[in-house]
Amino acid sequence: MTTDSPMQLGMIGLGRMGSNLVRRLMRDGHRCVVHDLDRSAVRELAGEGTAASSLQDLVAKLEKPRTAWLMLPAGAVQPTLDQLTGLLEPGDTVVGGGNSYYRDDMARAGQPARHRIHYVDCGTSGGVWGRERGYCLMIGGEDEPVARLDPLFRTIAPGAASAEPTPGRTRTGGTAPEGYLHCGPSGAGHFVKMVHNGVEYGMMAAIAEGLSVIEHADTGLRRRRADAETAPLREPEAYQYEIDVAEVAEVWRRGSVVGSWLVDLIADALARSPHLDSFTGRVSDSGEGRWTVLAAVDESVPAPVISAALTERYESRGLGEFGDKVLSAMRGEFGGHAEKAA
Amino acid sequence: MTTDSPMQLGMIGLGRMGSNLVRRLMRDGHRCVVHDLDRSAVRELAGEGTAASSLQDLVAKLEKPRTAWLMLPAGAVQPTLDQLTGLLEPGDTVVGGGNSYYRDDMARAGQPARHRIHYVDCGTSGGVWGRERGYCLMIGGEDEPVARLDPLFRTIAPGAASAEPTPGRTRTGGTAPEGYLHCGPSGAGHFVKMVHNGVEYGMMAAIAEGLSVIEHADTGLRRRRADAETAPLREPEAYQYEIDVAEVAEVWRRGSVVGSWLVDLIADALARSPHLDSFTGRVSDSGEGRWTVLAAVDESVPAPVISAALTERYESRGLGEFGDKVLSAMRGEFGGHAEKAA
Amino acid sequence: MTTDSPMQLGMIGLGRMGSNLVRRLMRDGHRCVVHDLDRSAVRELAGEGTAASSLQDLVAKLEKPRTAWLMLPAGAVQPTLDQLTGLLEPGDTVVGGGNSYYRDDMARAGQPARHRIHYVDCGTSGGVWGRERGYCLMIGGEDEPVARLDPLFRTIAPGAASAEPTPGRTRTGGTAPEGYLHCGPSGAGHFVKMVHNGVEYGMMAAIAEGLSVIEHADTGLRRRRADAETAPLREPEAYQYEIDVAEVAEVWRRGSVVGSWLVDLIADALARSPHLDSFTGRVSDSGEGRWTVLAAVDESVPAPVISAALTERYESRGLGEFGDKVLSAMRGEFGGHAEKAA
Amino acid sequence: MTTDSPMQLGMIGLGRMGSNLVRRLMRDGHRCVVHDLDRSAVRELAGEGTAASSLQDLVAKLEKPRTAWLMLPAGAVQPTLDQLTGLLEPGDTVVGGGNSYYRDDMARAGQPARHRIHYVDCGTSGGVWGRERGYCLMIGGEDEPVARLDPLFRTIAPGAASAEPTPGRTRTGGTAPEGYLHCGPSGAGHFVKMVHNGVEYGMMAAIAEGLSVIEHADTGLRRRRADAETAPLREPEAYQYEIDVAEVAEVWRRGSVVGSWLVDLIADALARSPHLDSFTGRVSDSGEGRWTVLAAVDESVPAPVISAALTERYESRGLGEFGDKVLSAMRGEFGGHAEKAA
Repeated sequence: MTTDSPMQLGMIGLGRMGSNLVRRLMRDGHRCVVHDLDRSAVRELAGEGTAASSLQDLVAKLEKPRTAWLMLPAGAVQPTLDQLTGLLEPGDTVVGGGNSYYRDDMARAGQPARHRIHYVDCGTSGGVWGRERGYCLMIGGEDEPVARLDPLFRTIAPGAASAEPTPGRTRTGGTAPEGYLHCGPSGAGHFVKMVHNGVEYGMMAAIAEGLSVIEHADTGLRRRRADAETAPLREPEAYQYEIDVAEVAEVWRRGSVVGSWLVDLIADALARSPHLDSFTGRVSDSGEGRWTVLAAVDESVPAPVISAALTERYESRGLGEFGDKVLSAMRGEFGGHAEKAA
Repeated sequence: MTTDSPMQLGMIGLGRMGSNLVRRLMRDGHRCVVHDLDRSAVRELAGEGTAASSLQDLVAKLEKPRTAWLMLPAGAVQPTLDQLTGLLEPGDTVVGGGNSYYRDDMARAGQPARHRIHYVDCGTSGGVWGRERGYCLMIGGEDEPVARLDPLFRTIAPGAASAEPTPGRTRTGGTAPEGYLHCGPSGAGHFVKMVHNGVEYGMMAAIAEGLSVIEHADTGLRRRRADAETAPLREPEAYQYEIDVAEVAEVWRRGSVVGSWLVDLIADALARSPHLDSFTGRVSDSGEGRWTVLAAVDESVPAPVISAALTERYESRGLGEFGDKVLSAMRGEFGGHAEKAA
Repeated sequence: MTTDSPMQLGMIGLGRMGSNLVRRLMRDGHRCVVHDLDRSAVRELAGEGTAASSLQDLVAKLEKPRTAWLMLPAGAVQPTLDQLTGLLEPGDTVVGGGNSYYRDDMARAGQPARHRIHYVDCGTSGGVWGRERGYCLMIGGEDEPVARLDPLFRTIAPGAASAEPTPGRTRTGGTAPEGYLHCGPSGAGHFVKMVHNGVEYGMMAAIAEGLSVIEHADTGLRRRRADAETAPLREPEAYQYEIDVAEVAEVWRRGSVVGSWLVDLIADALARSPHLDSFTGRVSDSGEGRWTVLAAVDESVPAPVISAALTERYESRGLGEFGDKVLSAMRGEFGGHAEKAA
Repeated sequence: MTTDSPMQLGMIGLGRMGSNLVRRLMRDGHRCVVHDLDRSAVRELAGEGTAASSLQDLVAKLEKPRTAWLMLPAGAVQPTLDQLTGLLEPGDTVVGGGNSYYRDDMARAGQPARHRIHYVDCGTSGGVWGRERGYCLMIGGEDEPVARLDPLFRTIAPGAASAEPTPGRTRTGGTAPEGYLHCGPSGAGHFVKMVHNGVEYGMMAAIAEGLSVIEHADTGLRRRRADAETAPLREPEAYQYEIDVAEVAEVWRRGSVVGSWLVDLIADALARSPHLDSFTGRVSDSGEGRWTVLAAVDESVPAPVISAALTERYESRGLGEFGDKVLSAMRGEFGGHAEKAA
């Protein structure tokens, strides 16, 4: 399959996401000029796209109006954009991929706009599987450049065939069923992507908690020392199940209400390692969950689940330690309770 | 398609779930004797299955060893089981469908066992769509009757073709990839179903919170009276988006990390009614979420997300009112703060 | 009792807090020039302090180096400060009372500093009772002006005699045992006051939830319709207590671990109205709780309790409605569950 | 001061709480027969009370109608009560102190009642300070024995003088202002004590979180590596405060809204050790917090703050580990995210 409307674009940043995007685009007939500070990344794609040795070189090799797509770590976006703005010409477009804070997009959009250069923010979900599966795109910016880049978005997105049609949907047109959406003006794409990741945090946490309750359904089989400091299990006979958590995840993949890509993924991880022994359980957070909580607070919208999911990640990294010491210290003060070892 | 191993069973309770199970079973070649206190429900299925006018009649029409499947409201299970136990014979099996508390299953399994009657608990997920899609089954009980009923479970479940194989899965055999699983001894089926629903609460809440943050992304456009009692929005310029929530749900269905059946469903509901105006937002809870929280507390497993999701449902029904009055009363006492109207 | 070091200050803003501060200061021998846009508030204090008809008049009536204390609603601080900065002279000091966001203090401190005017931020806790009881002061700013204003802070604070000495405290000196503290540079005072209010939210919520559990200890006496949508109470016999919540609050005031001013206050409110019938339960939030949550998120500090307390306030005002509708809509989609009336 | 109505009682269990109760009772003129399996504990009190070498001996030394007060670890209550029931006579009374689950009290009250022996449950708050300060007593049981034991409760409680009268309280009579309360029938005392401890969990957590936010107010001073996996701090300039947390706790003790015994205690602990270095932060929970959460779930009362406080304790003991591994595993699956070291 190739697109009816082949386009050319420059991809800046050839990490996992950037290079997979390039491959998906080229497979569909688009032409790519590629650049990365890491020359080996450029070489790897060189047989497929046109290598650019510098931003200047990349700009020189692009046809007007140019499209430059940034797929860079958060910290590298602003300096690259600054440099690029000086090289591009009125009518050109920069696409900000990656995981930017939407307020940065709002600021960034204003900056090239002063040079009549367009800035489009594009939240991209799909992870390492997106090259085959397609990526869900959440786009913000002016109508004209977003419409012009439609063939690129259409190629990158999974396409309508990747899921059943929504029965209740009567409106015709619109690109959402293809897997990409122009969400609104500058920042709207990354705003929706931010919330997407907040939802992701909550869904992940729900699954993790549930599987943990199942993993510990044998609690009543393990002896617990009952003492004045630790609540004993009142009904150990109700917690005597040794359940195969990996098979539970597998069975939930079909026909259940919790069926989801995340359940597919954890079923895979548990099939490989039934107790996930190779993981330590230190869970990073890369910003979007925090920003979603901040937005909910600002909007006065209750978001206890997403907040709790974020807190769990902080706890997983030991960041509650001082607070916990305060609790222990108070217990020591009023009750003479000494801390207990594990 | 018809099963290679047709069986006969009696279905007691012909509500939505029971009658859909009957239809799915018969379509695959199984024979059903059906009973419900509501005779019109029996009549509706009469052309397809064999009608039974009473439990006695149903037992009389079943071949030995008999299989009687209960698909009843929680309150009706115990009296029906009591009556049934007096009618069945050693070697017969009762399947407890519906949403029982797993501890009731543990007790119930002991009761017919005294008469050498088997009791199998079977958690069933899939809702109103299960007739076509198949149901995810989580089963508890002794090995022998669970193995004997395998053809029924296999028919009811969605089947392996309903999802891609899990790449990392190397074990052969096992029924989980078919969409049904023998989870352990009595109660294990409803234990896993209970947790499934707890996960469902958490996932639903994550999606609801996220879509709500998007729905309110226009907060900065609406004037808010800033007074000493209510925090004003500090940066209204960052909340000026009027985003089409229905289209966001639609776009998340393809390629995104949050892709799931629940997102499919809310995309459908929003396609029909973009602001869900016909709903009041009073959210019931039917037990499993509570029980999951209780199990997590007993097992000493942190489950803040599922707990928060349960709390949100209580709040949605106004059950926090007295506590809120306590807060208002304290604010009045220390600060002379009068309550504010909406 | 009168202070050994009487000072003069100008108080701008004669609401409840401002006028009570003036009265407490004058009772201790300090002299106050008072101003408010509302002339009746000025008149009320006129017999006691020196009335100023305008900011100009107030500045004219203050001895150098001047001290002007702002006790204004959040929205009025910045314009007043702007005007005042033009009137004051190098070496003068402005004290920002009220509930400012500490980041505003940081910015504000920079502004008069350019004119060599000092800006001191002062978080003030104590509510309507502070005139008699004294106020807890949390102060931020440069060392010199904070030290110079010490006699004022000492008068406003409750004094060491208002609580038993802390047994483990060995350091001598420091003003914390008097009830006021120079917390750090500009903003530090309102930062600590912000967190104080966050803690207050959490403590209030804990008390409110607990009293609500006691108020509802009679749940088992009230009939509940058990249906498939609503979880019935499994053990109604365990919830048959009709407990006098007002007396519980009263008894907790003495000797218990939860003894606190907040319990004192709710005991008072419940003594007046045992079921708090005159309150609707719409609980405002005036910014500090939100800002505490934002700070915790930024600092990567788990604060689930303060976050939950904030969320409860949002819920109390019906702000979760759209999210709740999303839940109802999903339940309708997968289970055909209709919403239930109360 | 001595009581007008001296009584005799037998104290069984001479741990910290039991022996302090005995001393407080004897100081006020009551007579105590004391017993403990640990003879050294008996010897320590022997000069003051009458030693009993066994339960038989204790019962023999008590005047009728007898009062036997159990102050035992949870696990020892039931066997002791069983033995005691065989030794006592109709009209005698057993007081269940300690931290029992109120449902056990309900069952226990029925047991001696069959022998016409009274059972009174008595929740006791006050910790190691109660001997001097008095204990807050929450009492459940029949009217007659509770009324008969009034002189004991009155002595143990702190007395009305230990706090200011509640201004709004108009009802005369009632013992709540003395610091003890007959809350209702059997179990009501420990029900209210259970919730008291739930509130305590929430208040402690609120304080701990707040102090932790202050302790980490210097986050912006510490370098953080920004990478794609960890959200960098966006505004480090807003988190540059090095605040003396011990002094903050001290200042909050006077005049602030959060003033409370718990703040007094943490001020003491922080005065001794400003960063609480001797604590590990593993926080036990001894049952009441869990039971409060279970009661809230059963009653359909939102209690997110108390639930979150309980969860924090679980997290502090590393009990979220499997769930965290699930999160890491999912992140690895969809994003190729490797876990990060601290």
